[in-house]
Amino acid sequence: METERIKQQIEFIREIDGLKHVLRQSYLMNGSRRENDAEHTWHIAVMGLLLKEHAIDQNLNLKKVVHMLLIHDLVEIDAGDTFAYDVKGYEDKWDRELAAAKRIYGLLPVDQQTEWMDLWLEFEEGQTTEAKYAAAMDRLHPVLHNFYTEGIAWKAHKVSVGVVKMRVAVVAEAAPALGQFVADLLEEAVEKGYLLP
Amino acid sequence: METERIKQQIEFIREIDGLKHVLRQSYLMNGSRRENDAEHTWHIAVMGLLLKEHAIDQNLNLKKVVHMLLIHDLVEIDAGDTFAYDVKGYEDKWDRELAAAKRIYGLLPVDQQTEWMDLWLEFEEGQTTEAKYAAAMDRLHPVLHNFYTEGIAWKAHKVSVGVVKMRVAVVAEAAPALGQFVADLLEEAVEKGYLLP
Repeated sequence: METERIKQQIEFIREIDGLKHVLRQSYLMNGSRRENDAEHTWHIAVMGLLLKEHAIDQNLNLKKVVHMLLIHDLVEIDAGDTFAYDVKGYEDKWDRELAAAKRIYGLLPVDQQTEWMDLWLEFEEGQTTEAKYAAAMDRLHPVLHNFYTEGIAWKAHKVSVGVVKMRVAVVAEAAPALGQFVADLLEEAVEKGYLLP
Repeated sequence: METERIKQQIEFIREIDGLKHVLRQSYLMNGSRRENDAEHTWHIAVMGLLLKEHAIDQNLNLKKVVHMLLIHDLVEIDAGDTFAYDVKGYEDKWDRELAAAKRIYGLLPVDQQTEWMDLWLEFEEGQTTEAKYAAAMDRLHPVLHNFYTEGIAWKAHKVSVGVVKMRVAVVAEAAPALGQFVADLLEEAVEKGYLLP
């Protein structure tokens, strides 16, 4: 019984290796290549731990935040990465990702299916302070990558500051001081020509 | 004051992007390329969450485990990945990694330097149940990658089962059922010729 359960869990571990093949639009900070989802996920989980003091809710459950962050992109193994400013891609994003979540979390033992699926849904719904703070990390991260690569992906997709501001609004909501930081960074990015006004 | 602190934390986030450039000996599960440390770290953090029920200490602090796992390889940004079975590389591994830890964690605000450095040292010393369970994830992971790639890295380095068994001893200590699983997997690996007897 326990052996079967372990085999099922190990199959899940094997399956999610696919996250390392999902390429994002962001480039590594030195601009050498595009980042993949596993790398991105590691990075935002560290950010979640590092920046917690700035969270507006100082009682948030940080373990839950990190768990959410570590698994929230698994759906992209099937659904692919939808670029944040791809209007067309967003039309069926939810349907594609929900189907992916059902398949991928469905590989887990039943009790874990429920727990992990619920965590993913909580992240997607973005209502709890944990989900908001997690989303803040997920949104802040590509801004840093874009800024430090002098806007490689922003320029390639002709992104303007207004849409990025909407996208990062949750940062100010979940962590006001970080919201101020990112607002200043976006202003500088426009001045430097990384991002359209 | 807060602004300066955030800038220092963001510089740390920027610096640790280097983990994505540290290549390991293990190959991705589909054998297409070598894995990097950021991908490995993401994967073992998920394993830590997924496999917790098998830990011999059911009261272990899982948030601490995940924090340890997420940051334990940062030293390799400077010190490089030392292959587990590279006897010569191990001679000065500790000196290289300690110097790296001092530089990298030293980039953090002072209070976080202490906390993160202590977590890294706890992992390296391997005495607490959290450190042992974290090490178990770190050791189990490359065995899975090797097994599912039919032993690419094991074959390349002519690794024999005895040294792998010593390396994974902590798995049985921290999580007996997983220890049995990995023992069975190693037996099968030898039978299939992935690993030398």
